Amino acid sequence: MTAADTTPRVPFTPARLHFGADYNPEHWPEEVRAEDIRLMKEAGVTMVTAGIFSWGLVETRPGSYDFTWFDRVMDDLAEAGIAVCLATMTASPPPWLSERHPEILPVTADGVRKWPGSRQHYCPSSPVYREHAVRLVEALATRYAAHPALAMWHIGNEYGCSNPVCYCDVSAADFRRWLRERYGTVEALNAAWSTTFWAQAYGSFDQVMPPRATPTHPNPTQQLDYWRFSDDALLGCYLAEKAVLRRVTPQVPVTTNHMPHHKPVDPYRWAPHEDVAALDHYQEPYDPRTHVDAAAAFDVVRCAGAGRPWMLMEQAPSAVNWRERNSPKPPGAMRLWSWQAVAQGADAVLYFQWRQSPGGAEKFHSAVVPHAGPDTRIFREVAALGRELAALPQLAGARSAPEVALLADWNSWWAMEQGSHPSSALSHREALLRHYAPLFDAGVPCDIVPPASDLSGYRLVVVPDLYLMSEATAEKLTAYVREGGHLLVSYFSGIADEDDHIHLGGYPAPLCQVLGLRVEEFWPLPQDGRVPLHGELNGAADLWSEAVDLEGARALAVFGDGELAGRPALTRHAFGDGVAWYAATRPDPELMRTLMDRVREAAGVAPVLAGLPAGVQATVREGEGGRFLFLLNHGAETVTVPLPYPARDLLAPGSEPAGCRTLPPRGVAVLQRAD
Amino acid sequence: MTAADTTPRVPFTPARLHFGADYNPEHWPEEVRAEDIRLMKEAGVTMVTAGIFSWGLVETRPGSYDFTWFDRVMDDLAEAGIAVCLATMTASPPPWLSERHPEILPVTADGVRKWPGSRQHYCPSSPVYREHAVRLVEALATRYAAHPALAMWHIGNEYGCSNPVCYCDVSAADFRRWLRERYGTVEALNAAWSTTFWAQAYGSFDQVMPPRATPTHPNPTQQLDYWRFSDDALLGCYLAEKAVLRRVTPQVPVTTNHMPHHKPVDPYRWAPHEDVAALDHYQEPYDPRTHVDAAAAFDVVRCAGAGRPWMLMEQAPSAVNWRERNSPKPPGAMRLWSWQAVAQGADAVLYFQWRQSPGGAEKFHSAVVPHAGPDTRIFREVAALGRELAALPQLAGARSAPEVALLADWNSWWAMEQGSHPSSALSHREALLRHYAPLFDAGVPCDIVPPASDLSGYRLVVVPDLYLMSEATAEKLTAYVREGGHLLVSYFSGIADEDDHIHLGGYPAPLCQVLGLRVEEFWPLPQDGRVPLHGELNGAADLWSEAVDLEGARALAVFGDGELAGRPALTRHAFGDGVAWYAATRPDPELMRTLMDRVREAAGVAPVLAGLPAGVQATVREGEGGRFLFLLNHGAETVTVPLPYPARDLLAPGSEPAGCRTLPPRGVAVLQRAD
Amino acid sequence: MTAADTTPRVPFTPARLHFGADYNPEHWPEEVRAEDIRLMKEAGVTMVTAGIFSWGLVETRPGSYDFTWFDRVMDDLAEAGIAVCLATMTASPPPWLSERHPEILPVTADGVRKWPGSRQHYCPSSPVYREHAVRLVEALATRYAAHPALAMWHIGNEYGCSNPVCYCDVSAADFRRWLRERYGTVEALNAAWSTTFWAQAYGSFDQVMPPRATPTHPNPTQQLDYWRFSDDALLGCYLAEKAVLRRVTPQVPVTTNHMPHHKPVDPYRWAPHEDVAALDHYQEPYDPRTHVDAAAAFDVVRCAGAGRPWMLMEQAPSAVNWRERNSPKPPGAMRLWSWQAVAQGADAVLYFQWRQSPGGAEKFHSAVVPHAGPDTRIFREVAALGRELAALPQLAGARSAPEVALLADWNSWWAMEQGSHPSSALSHREALLRHYAPLFDAGVPCDIVPPASDLSGYRLVVVPDLYLMSEATAEKLTAYVREGGHLLVSYFSGIADEDDHIHLGGYPAPLCQVLGLRVEEFWPLPQDGRVPLHGELNGAADLWSEAVDLEGARALAVFGDGELAGRPALTRHAFGDGVAWYAATRPDPELMRTLMDRVREAAGVAPVLAGLPAGVQATVREGEGGRFLFLLNHGAETVTVPLPYPARDLLAPGSEPAGCRTLPPRGVAVLQRAD
Repeated sequence: MTAADTTPRVPFTPARLHFGADYNPEHWPEEVRAEDIRLMKEAGVTMVTAGIFSWGLVETRPGSYDFTWFDRVMDDLAEAGIAVCLATMTASPPPWLSERHPEILPVTADGVRKWPGSRQHYCPSSPVYREHAVRLVEALATRYAAHPALAMWHIGNEYGCSNPVCYCDVSAADFRRWLRERYGTVEALNAAWSTTFWAQAYGSFDQVMPPRATPTHPNPTQQLDYWRFSDDALLGCYLAEKAVLRRVTPQVPVTTNHMPHHKPVDPYRWAPHEDVAALDHYQEPYDPRTHVDAAAAFDVVRCAGAGRPWMLMEQAPSAVNWRERNSPKPPGAMRLWSWQAVAQGADAVLYFQWRQSPGGAEKFHSAVVPHAGPDTRIFREVAALGRELAALPQLAGARSAPEVALLADWNSWWAMEQGSHPSSALSHREALLRHYAPLFDAGVPCDIVPPASDLSGYRLVVVPDLYLMSEATAEKLTAYVREGGHLLVSYFSGIADEDDHIHLGGYPAPLCQVLGLRVEEFWPLPQDGRVPLHGELNGAADLWSEAVDLEGARALAVFGDGELAGRPALTRHAFGDGVAWYAATRPDPELMRTLMDRVREAAGVAPVLAGLPAGVQATVREGEGGRFLFLLNHGAETVTVPLPYPARDLLAPGSEPAGCRTLPPRGVAVLQRAD
Repeated sequence: MTAADTTPRVPFTPARLHFGADYNPEHWPEEVRAEDIRLMKEAGVTMVTAGIFSWGLVETRPGSYDFTWFDRVMDDLAEAGIAVCLATMTASPPPWLSERHPEILPVTADGVRKWPGSRQHYCPSSPVYREHAVRLVEALATRYAAHPALAMWHIGNEYGCSNPVCYCDVSAADFRRWLRERYGTVEALNAAWSTTFWAQAYGSFDQVMPPRATPTHPNPTQQLDYWRFSDDALLGCYLAEKAVLRRVTPQVPVTTNHMPHHKPVDPYRWAPHEDVAALDHYQEPYDPRTHVDAAAAFDVVRCAGAGRPWMLMEQAPSAVNWRERNSPKPPGAMRLWSWQAVAQGADAVLYFQWRQSPGGAEKFHSAVVPHAGPDTRIFREVAALGRELAALPQLAGARSAPEVALLADWNSWWAMEQGSHPSSALSHREALLRHYAPLFDAGVPCDIVPPASDLSGYRLVVVPDLYLMSEATAEKLTAYVREGGHLLVSYFSGIADEDDHIHLGGYPAPLCQVLGLRVEEFWPLPQDGRVPLHGELNGAADLWSEAVDLEGARALAVFGDGELAGRPALTRHAFGDGVAWYAATRPDPELMRTLMDRVREAAGVAPVLAGLPAGVQATVREGEGGRFLFLLNHGAETVTVPLPYPARDLLAPGSEPAGCRTLPPRGVAVLQRAD
Repeated sequence: MTAADTTPRVPFTPARLHFGADYNPEHWPEEVRAEDIRLMKEAGVTMVTAGIFSWGLVETRPGSYDFTWFDRVMDDLAEAGIAVCLATMTASPPPWLSERHPEILPVTADGVRKWPGSRQHYCPSSPVYREHAVRLVEALATRYAAHPALAMWHIGNEYGCSNPVCYCDVSAADFRRWLRERYGTVEALNAAWSTTFWAQAYGSFDQVMPPRATPTHPNPTQQLDYWRFSDDALLGCYLAEKAVLRRVTPQVPVTTNHMPHHKPVDPYRWAPHEDVAALDHYQEPYDPRTHVDAAAAFDVVRCAGAGRPWMLMEQAPSAVNWRERNSPKPPGAMRLWSWQAVAQGADAVLYFQWRQSPGGAEKFHSAVVPHAGPDTRIFREVAALGRELAALPQLAGARSAPEVALLADWNSWWAMEQGSHPSSALSHREALLRHYAPLFDAGVPCDIVPPASDLSGYRLVVVPDLYLMSEATAEKLTAYVREGGHLLVSYFSGIADEDDHIHLGGYPAPLCQVLGLRVEEFWPLPQDGRVPLHGELNGAADLWSEAVDLEGARALAVFGDGELAGRPALTRHAFGDGVAWYAATRPDPELMRTLMDRVREAAGVAPVLAGLPAGVQATVREGEGGRFLFLLNHGAETVTVPLPYPARDLLAPGSEPAGCRTLPPRGVAVLQRAD
């Protein structure tokens, strides 16, 4: 299961940007569908995702399938010329399945069983679940293989959203199988898990349990492997369905929708098994930096899909219903953030969901057609965006080519946020965003890639708190700098190997040479602790510090007080033909920006556009249809953006900008070179 | 179980106000009783509640009853002329019952079993529990049917206090029975529960489970029905015991003690099955507004009992023991708050408990006779109050007739506070008090009644955040205004029907006509978010806002900033012969007071007394004994209250007030018209 | 089990202070051992604790023991002249044991089973666990009885650290056995547990359960007895192993390592069964008062061991890994705090652990040989301290003799912190430290002893919030004052008897006579509530107040406002030949210091050294080797300490101080009278 699927890809090459929504006609009487389709046409909908939660309606009794009502949905959509991204319907098993097989219900580490009444109430390792799911997919695929509406398969839905990790006995048995495959012998497992510690040595695989509730700190490698296993168990569900689809409909592309920065599922491992990468993303309108968060998520999914155009499979037309206090998207925000996805490589923009349901747990989630009906701000904004996207088919397929790579690694995430560490305040997500934000704000596009990637083409590689790092990755980074690359590494990177064993000899042992330094002790700062930094760079830092001994590097800043006063905090090491920078603490955002500007300039990385006003995002996509410059004003002020060349504004064809483009708050421009 | 008991009521018409306490002589050697009875006489005790937790002592082995020791208690009390409100002894099953039938122990949604060692360790649906309880009640009622001390039955005790909702398999089976009765067919259940959402459609009732722990957001209607079912299960326990009592002692009134604003038990549904409504109430002395809280609770229980005099079944003589930090009641506070109950319609004032126990979980709860003995402030204050009450038998039976009704609805409470809503910060209790407080502070008595009540007699009806509202209620409110009534409705009212399905077409659909407006989107404010309001009314608001379109109403205030700047926040709509007011946000207390004053004045609702000083509560009770004006100074200052007519001060007969009455802090006056 | 073991003690009389560490060679390849032993010699190591978590390695299959690898460890250490404190290896059962006997796994009050993967995953009552443990100890003791390295037995490890209380069915059965032994008849249990309250009367012991999750407040005496039982169950494990050791190796002293202020284990009950008392202690470097905390812990363990020298069995060389944010010990801190242990009576200073492990849950816990190797600050500081200690063999065996006793009582701790009390904010640990700190800061050494101790030799006895107190203790304290002693008692002392029944008649009934007062009501202050005190003593207090009636005592301060304004807050009562003081509230630290100074001066208790600068700890140990004055500068400033007599500085032999000694921050001096 860990080897990538090697079947040939089925290309996803839409003739234009797709636009649409999750469509759940089962919530409504059939007579509503005529209005639905009329409104879809009015809004320029080209594709809907359907059937996600329809299992219970097509298989009301075990093995007895009745697709009649769904046939009518498919026929009506086909007739309207609307493509269907058809879900495999397996996201939520019907009540009869768990009634007959309660052992499929997931169980927490504390032994609490999770019952039906919401969704995804299945153990990912359950053979009973998989068997029933695969049987359904076979019936479904056979039924619609030749249907004209079928454009794509949507396998499952948001894998692991609600059932990411299960600790039941079925999972335990599957975990043992997985461990046998991974380690071969119990001696190898014992070595990897350091079981001489606390007398945990196993005599056989049969003795091994999932990391259920323990009296005190659990075994870290056992936990790390359980993250890996659980991700594999979910991927196994996906691949079992995909195998059926490939056999029955070999020509139809498949995907599944990832969630942004979803810890249990590693998109870099899944994406090779997907014909197109897809993301669900829900901004927090009350967070003034929510677009930066989104930008990083978009870059992750784009890079997971090897830079190919991707799908924004779900976004809210306005408010969600699962935060503590759910703000609508203010006028213009939905348009801005939808264009942001396109600006960062999306070729499809879909909503959850088409029509707001009157009952159920998501009835207060906004939809394209709200409770109040289509004569509403929300529907009007959606329809207007639909018209804009329809007018620009030339954008489809275009790509971008950033000069900077940030490393992200789900294995490191899983390992770094475990307990019994020097500080429990470290966060993979925070670290990634802390390094991403100053690049984003400076107008510098980034790739966010896993450590195994080819880094040779980048001018700059950034390594944010990458706790777990193989010798091979460290050697690659060392070679990268030796051969002229620029590298910025932050504290607590390169500490442990793939088994979560410390690289011995002074931290971060495998990076000491390239960084020109050695760390003897970690010195996490107390809650609310801050420390000034002095030197070539000045400012303040918090959260973390380290006792650094320079072994070739030069201090750009030293700690200004505390037990480490005078010792290096930020360093620079010319190594081979390149330069390696190190941050032994967490600079505050302003100093982080100063540091990143300096690193970036040294690496020769320029922004997309010189003189970009604050708050404006600029990106470029280039393809057969041309080279497109996107300008998005995320700020609260009207700004004027200088243009590098004469350009046509594709969204405002009548107003050709000359030399500059003025954007109101939430304004968007798509520009094509005109000279 | 849901239909009201139609047996004729047994009137509860005491010749004077009852005064007394929970009496638990089993905590003490029998020789203590002589002192108890002497002190009871000294304190003017007329009634004690006895036997609440005596099951284990009268049935030490299954089916083997021995009431001998309790006979002596009853005889001694009868001889002393003290009436007994005899508990049915079923509140806490003896250890042998759960040892033999561990399946009676309640279970949480997470599957955690609750064990003996405290009280109420039984599943309300358990047939084993009910069978044993009913058998005991039969023996008890037969034993004491003709006993001279028996004055009233106290069935169970604080139903659902500790075991409000059970998720065990016995409850699951009972829930299915309840659902069959409610819905008839599984199709009707599927429709009510919106089970097409997330593939939850049931093929039979046998597949349905209680809303146990789920992977994510549970089905809201399933949860709502579980609140209803659980209340019914508790009520079923009560009714099973009552049936025995009605048969054996048809002439003895029955009651049970409710808790103030206790979410699991709907007093409006229970009270028709009670001969007198009874309340336990425990003020928080460290809360300077605790009397307002109490006032609302008193009005709920009074209205649940159809306006008849009610019993304050339990209050603390001083401190309780179950808060984080338990303050005694300062000198005078117990007297003030006891008189407050009488002023709001109570005909009985009892304490928990008579003598402070030396051991057990409530040993630090104050009692009439404290650990330090009767030569104590607490006993002296109780005895003094006993003398005061004894001197005013004419108060018994008198009633009041408020002109304002607030609507309260347990169904709406259950539905509104579920998850996945626009804001998780909404609270039924807070909403009720927010609307009640400005009326209370202005000296305006209120009824607090369920939506099904006849509202035609009120000058003003207030609807505080009544999320769940039937079409019928909305129509009644519309007709009420059309025919000249005044109505104040707050946001998030009239949103969902009895199945928690949204009333479609713009919020609040069934009230749009009477309010003259339509809401397109909810716009909950962020944590600590505040918004200014401008217009005829000015001030600030927080928590919530809405995008209101006026359709006939007039804006009294608009939002002063934010995304809704300039849109209506408070509105007024002349409709038919009446007026409907709407608050689309939560005004801060000062603005709420301004708004309520304006609404009230327009409705022609005047306070009990003009010129009432701040902090003074004034109420009127009227009956065969006369018309009584109560004045209670809850403030920290001595105040002078102007009197509307010459009056005698019944508590201070020597000091006839002329034109006004001066009250020290915590002072009380009971005045009877003297001219 | 509750009676003290009467076998003769095996004396622990080292010729010098022991120095060493936990040694876990199983984490490393055997070839590392040569370097280990070389570095141990370099650091002056005299003793290591070995084998703590080796069960799984010596008994890889049930009953099949293979000590070969461990023989080599013992041999190598013996050859190097390093003594072994040999662990019985039973702290963590191997996976095969819980695989074969899952019923040994502990269970929480909520029914959650705790699984292997960490340590101590056994129910202390499990006969299966004990049987296997005892069988291992037999094999181990037999194997190494005559081994030259064996110097001492370390039984178990940190008993109850991770499995202090178990609620499984095995524990339930054992609890019933324990209750039968304690109470004899179920009637006696019913009386002790006040089971007439809430109908809890038991018909037989078979009906009794552990205090598992209950619907509401559990029975307090049931809980108190469960603390007692659980401590006994752990002690039973210890004694079962000890019995084997005494039989096989009667000449080898035994110990086990306590944790500072560890609520589940009462060191005063355990220590009579230990040949030497031992403590693990982990300072919090970010807490500037961590040394005061440590000082109290050191005094507890010293007094538990009847004043004999004790062992600091574990401390961190630098950072730990189990706090939220783990600071290293700054340069000098480890030395200072190690010397503090010696200054307070330790004859052994050991670390956890020798070499920092590369994997497992404690890999980020500092060790003598860090990840970065021996060329590190940590190793250098350890080795330097080793040399210092080696140079002062004359310190071994010396003792101290404080004039002040504070009472501490685990039974009172267990009872006081239960729920349903007047205030949930009371803390045994806080109360102890609140009274200890002003004595420590004044340079006054204290004993901290259980109430059953002989108090006649002390000038002053301090009773901090000792909620549970027997009549006998109260009588002893009364006699102590009558005969000339000085006594300071704080609020909420002497409230309940051994069954947690209130001493009736006004609080604190059995102390009213000696204190000359009576408390009628507790008046806990609200969160953040503060009250001024006026009178001879002035200041402020918080947390608690009481309504005190003086009956012979004199008020030193009264409450300055609030409901108790003008009533006594601090009192003094001349009684017999002594004086009893009472605090009816919690004085803030400054007033507490004033009060304690006054009490202390009246009692004639002087500090070790006059004119001690702030931040300096001074202690005296005296023995055959001489009388030693320890000076430890815990402050941030360099200070000069006046010396009472000419003295030699044993740590700085070249620099004889004349009249005074200057100490830098973290400086230490050990002085011997030179005249």
